[in-house]
Amino acid sequence: MTKNIKVNAAILIIGNEILSGRTQDTNTSTLATWLNSIGVKVQEVRVIPDIEKTIVETLNVLRKENDYVFTTGGIGPTHDDITAESVSKAFGLKYEIHKEGYKILEAYYKPGEFNEGRQKMIWMPENAELILNPTSGAPGFSVENVFCLPGVPSIMKSMLGGLKNKIVGGKPILSHTISLKTVESEIANSLTEVQNKNKEVEIGSYPFFHAGKLGVSIVIRSEDQSKIDECSSQILRFVNEKNIEVVDR
Amino acid sequence: MTKNIKVNAAILIIGNEILSGRTQDTNTSTLATWLNSIGVKVQEVRVIPDIEKTIVETLNVLRKENDYVFTTGGIGPTHDDITAESVSKAFGLKYEIHKEGYKILEAYYKPGEFNEGRQKMIWMPENAELILNPTSGAPGFSVENVFCLPGVPSIMKSMLGGLKNKIVGGKPILSHTISLKTVESEIANSLTEVQNKNKEVEIGSYPFFHAGKLGVSIVIRSEDQSKIDECSSQILRFVNEKNIEVVDR
Repeated sequence: MTKNIKVNAAILIIGNEILSGRTQDTNTSTLATWLNSIGVKVQEVRVIPDIEKTIVETLNVLRKENDYVFTTGGIGPTHDDITAESVSKAFGLKYEIHKEGYKILEAYYKPGEFNEGRQKMIWMPENAELILNPTSGAPGFSVENVFCLPGVPSIMKSMLGGLKNKIVGGKPILSHTISLKTVESEIANSLTEVQNKNKEVEIGSYPFFHAGKLGVSIVIRSEDQSKIDECSSQILRFVNEKNIEVVDR
Repeated sequence: MTKNIKVNAAILIIGNEILSGRTQDTNTSTLATWLNSIGVKVQEVRVIPDIEKTIVETLNVLRKENDYVFTTGGIGPTHDDITAESVSKAFGLKYEIHKEGYKILEAYYKPGEFNEGRQKMIWMPENAELILNPTSGAPGFSVENVFCLPGVPSIMKSMLGGLKNKIVGGKPILSHTISLKTVESEIANSLTEVQNKNKEVEIGSYPFFHAGKLGVSIVIRSEDQSKIDECSSQILRFVNEKNIEVVDR
């Protein structure tokens, strides 16, 4: 992949606890922010339950439609952790003890503590590449373009550094935000005109109600800073004409 | 639908701002919690960008696979709000001004303030049913089994009350949580045994690190309280045998 090609990814959140509403997913935002910073655009997120058939089928769709797939969740020691076995089935690979992973956990735990439950964490698809875990020992893994990370947000986040050399991004996606003291309907038409004149940038409009302030954030996104600047000055032109106050959020 | 049939739903989050990582989605957790409480199980969540083709195709998959689909985002006044037009195309319906919606917003705004941008918010699929908005006027809408809500979390949440009579759920899904001062690998085998003996309940195991406490929450979910109770007592039996402390999170 060269630096000029657009690189995209899907995020697959695996876990009943997100679908039941019990747990608020934060991994999507962490992963998406990080991926954007290295030039990978997230084009889809799916949240699915701990059901093998669903994981296998979804993964087999996403890994063909995206340059990269990142999964979170389901790689712990308990019965509901079925991601590694499901990934093995999706790729038609053996599900077996990962020798290097075994050595890592054997060294990580005190003698006698590396029990059967913990050993489950290094059962992986054959020839999986490890993703090291600086927080709690048990590694994630990757197979081809699929990267499997844990669900616990702090642990997941700590493992991203080790992925940097494995992910080849395109041009980083740049963004500029203009926050205005106005409501969306006051600027909708002018913003549409600017978007129509600048087809290659992505302009988003997001109302905010925050700490007693009410306004609209306009987010301009592109791989090309000069296009963002041009678009930004066109927006500031109509903002000025309409006497709308530019604020910080 | 009778009260004994399982009722399921998908949530479709529409918005580039979630995929870029800029905005943390919280609507999934709000919607899922509410749906569970009225006996509707969320079986899938997807987050997709503001691209018409993607919205139309995704919606046409989800609305056939689920009893209900709830969308959030993309029903405001700006150019990137394309949910209503996309839903019209998905159903092959005209996209037009909703007369009742028009009257609501005409009365909501001061004379002269109901401008073109605001009028965009009542362009909907023909014969859509309105979902009233007690917070900021502009209604959501439903077509058949698809319910379209705004993306701003406080507004979205305020509209759920008005949906209650339109959604027919099954038996509410009950849950019971047992929080333990332990690590997952200590209980993994025993928990697997309990799950195998109680196939009809869903047992989830979730490590937590919260306010200096470290432990595992076991969540038992079922429509049948007696099955939860039986499963719970089997878990407490091995917890007791292992001398594991039961804690509150």
